[in-house]
Amino acid sequence: MDLIIKNGTIATSADVFIGDLGIKDGKIAAISEPGVLSGKTEIEAKGMIVMPGAIDAHTHFELPIMDSSTADDFESGSKACAAGGVTTFIDFVTQTKGHSLFEDLEARQSQASGKVYIDYSLHMGITDFTERSFNEIKPVIDYGIPSFKIFMAYSKEGWMAGDGDLIKVLEKTKAHGGLMGIHGENQSIIDSVTEQFVKEGKLTANWHGLSRPHHSEIEALKRAIYFTDLTRSKLYIFHLTTGEGARLVAEAQAKGISVIAETCPHYLVLDESMYYKDEGWLYPSCPPLRNRFDAEVLWRALEMGALKVVATDHCSFTRAQKEKHKDNFTLIPRGLPGCETLLPILYSEGVKKCRISLSRMVDILSTSPARIFGLYPQKGTLAIGSDADITILDPDKALKITACSLHMKADFSPYEGMEIYGWPKFTISRGEVIYRDGEFISTAGRGEFVKRYLV
Amino acid sequence: MDLIIKNGTIATSADVFIGDLGIKDGKIAAISEPGVLSGKTEIEAKGMIVMPGAIDAHTHFELPIMDSSTADDFESGSKACAAGGVTTFIDFVTQTKGHSLFEDLEARQSQASGKVYIDYSLHMGITDFTERSFNEIKPVIDYGIPSFKIFMAYSKEGWMAGDGDLIKVLEKTKAHGGLMGIHGENQSIIDSVTEQFVKEGKLTANWHGLSRPHHSEIEALKRAIYFTDLTRSKLYIFHLTTGEGARLVAEAQAKGISVIAETCPHYLVLDESMYYKDEGWLYPSCPPLRNRFDAEVLWRALEMGALKVVATDHCSFTRAQKEKHKDNFTLIPRGLPGCETLLPILYSEGVKKCRISLSRMVDILSTSPARIFGLYPQKGTLAIGSDADITILDPDKALKITACSLHMKADFSPYEGMEIYGWPKFTISRGEVIYRDGEFISTAGRGEFVKRYLV
Amino acid sequence: MDLIIKNGTIATSADVFIGDLGIKDGKIAAISEPGVLSGKTEIEAKGMIVMPGAIDAHTHFELPIMDSSTADDFESGSKACAAGGVTTFIDFVTQTKGHSLFEDLEARQSQASGKVYIDYSLHMGITDFTERSFNEIKPVIDYGIPSFKIFMAYSKEGWMAGDGDLIKVLEKTKAHGGLMGIHGENQSIIDSVTEQFVKEGKLTANWHGLSRPHHSEIEALKRAIYFTDLTRSKLYIFHLTTGEGARLVAEAQAKGISVIAETCPHYLVLDESMYYKDEGWLYPSCPPLRNRFDAEVLWRALEMGALKVVATDHCSFTRAQKEKHKDNFTLIPRGLPGCETLLPILYSEGVKKCRISLSRMVDILSTSPARIFGLYPQKGTLAIGSDADITILDPDKALKITACSLHMKADFSPYEGMEIYGWPKFTISRGEVIYRDGEFISTAGRGEFVKRYLV
Amino acid sequence: MDLIIKNGTIATSADVFIGDLGIKDGKIAAISEPGVLSGKTEIEAKGMIVMPGAIDAHTHFELPIMDSSTADDFESGSKACAAGGVTTFIDFVTQTKGHSLFEDLEARQSQASGKVYIDYSLHMGITDFTERSFNEIKPVIDYGIPSFKIFMAYSKEGWMAGDGDLIKVLEKTKAHGGLMGIHGENQSIIDSVTEQFVKEGKLTANWHGLSRPHHSEIEALKRAIYFTDLTRSKLYIFHLTTGEGARLVAEAQAKGISVIAETCPHYLVLDESMYYKDEGWLYPSCPPLRNRFDAEVLWRALEMGALKVVATDHCSFTRAQKEKHKDNFTLIPRGLPGCETLLPILYSEGVKKCRISLSRMVDILSTSPARIFGLYPQKGTLAIGSDADITILDPDKALKITACSLHMKADFSPYEGMEIYGWPKFTISRGEVIYRDGEFISTAGRGEFVKRYLV
Repeated sequence: MDLIIKNGTIATSADVFIGDLGIKDGKIAAISEPGVLSGKTEIEAKGMIVMPGAIDAHTHFELPIMDSSTADDFESGSKACAAGGVTTFIDFVTQTKGHSLFEDLEARQSQASGKVYIDYSLHMGITDFTERSFNEIKPVIDYGIPSFKIFMAYSKEGWMAGDGDLIKVLEKTKAHGGLMGIHGENQSIIDSVTEQFVKEGKLTANWHGLSRPHHSEIEALKRAIYFTDLTRSKLYIFHLTTGEGARLVAEAQAKGISVIAETCPHYLVLDESMYYKDEGWLYPSCPPLRNRFDAEVLWRALEMGALKVVATDHCSFTRAQKEKHKDNFTLIPRGLPGCETLLPILYSEGVKKCRISLSRMVDILSTSPARIFGLYPQKGTLAIGSDADITILDPDKALKITACSLHMKADFSPYEGMEIYGWPKFTISRGEVIYRDGEFISTAGRGEFVKRYLV
Repeated sequence: MDLIIKNGTIATSADVFIGDLGIKDGKIAAISEPGVLSGKTEIEAKGMIVMPGAIDAHTHFELPIMDSSTADDFESGSKACAAGGVTTFIDFVTQTKGHSLFEDLEARQSQASGKVYIDYSLHMGITDFTERSFNEIKPVIDYGIPSFKIFMAYSKEGWMAGDGDLIKVLEKTKAHGGLMGIHGENQSIIDSVTEQFVKEGKLTANWHGLSRPHHSEIEALKRAIYFTDLTRSKLYIFHLTTGEGARLVAEAQAKGISVIAETCPHYLVLDESMYYKDEGWLYPSCPPLRNRFDAEVLWRALEMGALKVVATDHCSFTRAQKEKHKDNFTLIPRGLPGCETLLPILYSEGVKKCRISLSRMVDILSTSPARIFGLYPQKGTLAIGSDADITILDPDKALKITACSLHMKADFSPYEGMEIYGWPKFTISRGEVIYRDGEFISTAGRGEFVKRYLV
Repeated sequence: MDLIIKNGTIATSADVFIGDLGIKDGKIAAISEPGVLSGKTEIEAKGMIVMPGAIDAHTHFELPIMDSSTADDFESGSKACAAGGVTTFIDFVTQTKGHSLFEDLEARQSQASGKVYIDYSLHMGITDFTERSFNEIKPVIDYGIPSFKIFMAYSKEGWMAGDGDLIKVLEKTKAHGGLMGIHGENQSIIDSVTEQFVKEGKLTANWHGLSRPHHSEIEALKRAIYFTDLTRSKLYIFHLTTGEGARLVAEAQAKGISVIAETCPHYLVLDESMYYKDEGWLYPSCPPLRNRFDAEVLWRALEMGALKVVATDHCSFTRAQKEKHKDNFTLIPRGLPGCETLLPILYSEGVKKCRISLSRMVDILSTSPARIFGLYPQKGTLAIGSDADITILDPDKALKITACSLHMKADFSPYEGMEIYGWPKFTISRGEVIYRDGEFISTAGRGEFVKRYLV
Repeated sequence: MDLIIKNGTIATSADVFIGDLGIKDGKIAAISEPGVLSGKTEIEAKGMIVMPGAIDAHTHFELPIMDSSTADDFESGSKACAAGGVTTFIDFVTQTKGHSLFEDLEARQSQASGKVYIDYSLHMGITDFTERSFNEIKPVIDYGIPSFKIFMAYSKEGWMAGDGDLIKVLEKTKAHGGLMGIHGENQSIIDSVTEQFVKEGKLTANWHGLSRPHHSEIEALKRAIYFTDLTRSKLYIFHLTTGEGARLVAEAQAKGISVIAETCPHYLVLDESMYYKDEGWLYPSCPPLRNRFDAEVLWRALEMGALKVVATDHCSFTRAQKEKHKDNFTLIPRGLPGCETLLPILYSEGVKKCRISLSRMVDILSTSPARIFGLYPQKGTLAIGSDADITILDPDKALKITACSLHMKADFSPYEGMEIYGWPKFTISRGEVIYRDGEFISTAGRGEFVKRYLV
């Protein structure tokens, strides 16, 4: 064996036990009771949790927004991932109107090229609902990108799909074995409320949440689920935020409708009261933070299995970028950082507080996203032959989160001041230790694009 | 290592991969890529499926029925299990009115003593709804039997619980961390229909199914689920048979009601047309066989996860026992054999026909029953440290089922003539090969009673 | 014309207008704008409400209970009706086990004979679920009694139907165009709770309500509605009490299931707090009083039309009869008087408080029960040719209810002390004024049995 | 009395009986058993049905469409109404973008002025969702127009409301006691399908129905009902066509959501097979004709009360207008004539075929629309004091429909060749016979605009 992780508490989506884990040629080669395996290098992991590296299935690195770009590029973003125990991320290509999907895909690959520390993939965001785009769906799937994102909002940006388009993309992805995902908000409702607020001079950040009310998400989800049922296709809901939304998903699943849903850490542990803080302008995201009751329903839905994935929607900005528009919520760049704190927050607020089990957390962060998006069995598990993408978590390490203790480029964290237990001690990518005790031991560009295929 | 299983297709509820599996001191000690492990004994398993032994969570060995007893006693029954790749079974204690639960439990343990080939446990069937019985629920759980069975039917036998009793047992099991299971049929409906048939001289076996119509199950399940919701407790449904019943379970789960359901192989692959055969009197069971549409909904519910367990309700009779009453369906001993064919049928009709995946089958037959009934992680998985209860299945071996090709004492099989793929080549219990290629290599009495604790 | 009612506010289930109403030969002969008609006798009704007499579709006069009988016999009961603006009542025959339905029907008719002041009919209560009884359903319908009552409770009394019986009666009434009604309570639940209370010495009246919990009604209604759906027949629910029950009825109706439901005045304006009064033992009824939230849902359901009838379940006892068992709620005779206050309470608490419109009240008290039970168009409306059963209500007359201000024989009223507006000034039966300003102008025995036929 | 209608079968939404009806000063003054009343003029109506005149709550006379206008103007349209037993119609004002609501209202009143034979009102169609329009809602209600129409489709025409607008209008109408109505089709779905058809050269009329699939209506209704629930307001659904839509309405009502729905005669008695006829291009309407299963569900929903109104959506074109675009369904003027056949078709296909009762028909055609839209009690009933708007129907008169047998200007009828029973012999408006046996006895302009107020 090239590397042995000894005496760890090995956790998969199925089992938790104490043992040794052996790696050879970048793959998991053996798992045993303690003391059986030996290797060139050995890591002592007694008292540590040895788990498949987390997969952040929803990041936005180097995303151009209005006149600037997000704070984290592929390099800093993927470094932050590694520091947080994330070993694979899936970012997005967003089609520019008039472009072919492949044109934008290639551009996006160039952007990532040479910068990425961990393995990654991309979802394909369609915004130009033309014959040409529809015809590219199959080639994009064949390329290794079977997951698509469609916006039910963002009309101003020119991204929004009409209902007819939604149905067409569902039909096309179904036909070719792909998976359509949605940003589920009703733009017309949001516009109508926002217009009213603007007219009334209600422009401070606290109006942001109210401008995107619960029903702007709920209505969109109802509609998308209906279309999924109608076409007998499959739907992925990005960043679901409302308790009622989670209930809709559970009910749809009970009826045999194939709906999969994701939520994000900030919807689980933060709430709309953030917008009323002195620097409330730091926290707008789309969809916005909801309330404590929503959060508890989301946790319960994660435990029950109605929600299958937690990913971050990492979309980081600097304080300066946010502050510039602090007096007008309609202009504040929306998005929150999160890829570095994904795993610790899920462990600390989820597992340690007994809301979900350790195996369930592994499932939510690794195995399920790997299966859903076609990375499995290469990623997302600790099976023999799988990539040795492994996070060794110190469950007892406590840290009060501050932006400067993190590696991302956003100079604030929405979790500032929270005491979080459970931080990565080692992050291992394809058998190589790339992060250890706060130190990066790897080079930009070693991360590879992973082709994904759904079965 | 004491024993190495080499080059097998190792299948757990989570993963499927090719590798070696090492056993030491009756426990699983290592899993690796091929060629890494070595041991005193080695089994070559190339092309074979290496999986956790099946758990038959529902058997009736040595059950006294009317004037006789079931054909299989603990010895022949557990041998048949071993031959079929089942490494643990859970049978029942059925309380005699007036007895304490422990009195009947001890009697049942005596019956099993010295006869059993594989590990086993018992569910506790309560029939005397007295203060004394209710007060014994906690001690029975502490003894290692956390699962109970309550009959919503069988008034003549004196087993039937009133609705008030059902609610009380739900409250008691909830209070002490147990799990209440039900036989879900509405006896009043059945009696009413049966009485009519008897009056009209409709006594041949084909009237059996019609005498227990779909709604006799559906109504009972609705009622039990309502009581579970009301008491916020937990329910296990034994031998669910109707498609509508599976839908009720899925909907209840979506609402957050803790309902777990089991079906049996005969409801998946046989149907009511059996009763119209020449020897239709062989096939009555309670609940009865349904139709093909029910079966397809059950398969789909297994795949989706709404149904979590397949167990056999093995309750075997000889042809003579059945034939004696063949002209009066109300007297025909009801029950079908099945523990020996459980795994082959699920593999052949489920996995091979692509209705469920291999991992899902392992979950349904091993991991889920182990978790639900408190055998996990000792049983039900291939994790390091778990009991080495392993079945090595030859997926390509085809056999046309005949009663004489099987080891149970029932001299007919309801699956007679079906060509089934996938038969155990080795059955291993706590590291010991007890069955190999049709041969038993073990002694009666080696099987142990396993205490179960729910978490 | 024989009689003209002049200048009244004429109210039907459809319209409200000011006009004159002319009666000839006991029938309604003309309705006009004021001043058009003339007659031998004239009643000035300016400011009064002229409406079809109320139909109390649920009374229990001369009902033997335990060792005694209800306080009101057919004479005092029908007098109380007349004083309260009720012009028709429907009482019950309750089959004695072993009797034919006609035997008990004839006995009941003898009891009523010569005593009744207003027209009446009878529902047929089946308690002996034998071939003979089933075969009498058609003859009973042909006799003019198309409505039946089946008890889902009262096992001790030997009245309770099994589920199989319920289904059979639904099938039989469907086949012959009858209507099955139920007393919807789950006796097993009630027994189980009661037994516990008795064991704990909880015997005072306040435990009565708790011994028949909400779910004892809800479960029974769910079950009966399911059987109605199953048999595509028609169900009448007597004395529905719970808000959840009303919701079940509304949902069933939306699905096209033919379910009709009645509630009683005491469930609308009283609540369980009555049982905690000094003389709480006066108020037990079956089903028991619920809470204010239930009552508000019932009012809303009446307004929306999900509930179609208010009738009284008039079952009166004297204080002495109740007091005798005041220390043991299981023995207190259950039932409340109500036929005399039905209309005033509905008017005062319903119409005057704007919970329902005047036309809706007429529908609930007259037109709907007449249509549902086959009295229409002879009774229940003010159409030309219909019986001149008319109540002239003084909407401004206020009265603080006391038992001695009423004409029934119960010497207490559950509404004691309530200030109620709207009391009958005249009650007219087939064109004859039988009650005027507190005075009875009629003789016992003038009331006739009305044959009812459903269309 | 000025006029007596003698010996007719008088039918209201509540009762049916034989009697005389007296009219004085244009109002209903008396109803009596035969032979009681006398008057200056008498009409013998033996064997005839005497009912409140039908209210066609949905007409489009003189509607400019594309380059032309509908075939019937207010004069010919209202004449056709009179000939068909319709005594009141409600047409529409459709706001022109940029105009104030009153500007268009006045223009529309001018158009109608001097032409109308029967009383009428107008709904207000809002298309410009500006502050000004919202502020005019209250004045429009005060003017006597409490009902509004909002288009969920017709984006090309510039009429379509966004979801934010829908919610705002619901809030505004709720605040001021108005009623919002919708044209419920999802334009995006329709555009998407149509675009595809156009691309594929599928342009003949038979593609019209398929271009507006069931789900284009169902989705729109789901959305509108959700918004109604959310705002706790009230919704009127114009021209509902799908069985699933009717189910949605029934379920919403059961939950206490205030949803009222209308369907049209053509959805009840015609189906999509019309488009496959030789002259299929004559029949496109929006929404399109559906299938026989939808129609049967609609009839059942009318009977049960889930649907409350049948109105015609009379929007007539000449053959020439239709034929001009017969090769391109996207250009064919959409709409069907119907006001003249509304009552005969409902009688013949509904009452005579026992799908609905006579009283239910009166409710659907007169009483309900009068109540819903604020015409009651002036219109919609035969109560004392109500307008003497009366239709005397000869139930035995059979007529095979041909366009030339009708009085409207459309030179084809979609019902061509159907044998229909039940035609008006007399139509009476405010006591004046305006149509008798095929002859018009009245002058254009006698019809008055009726102010409507909701209570």
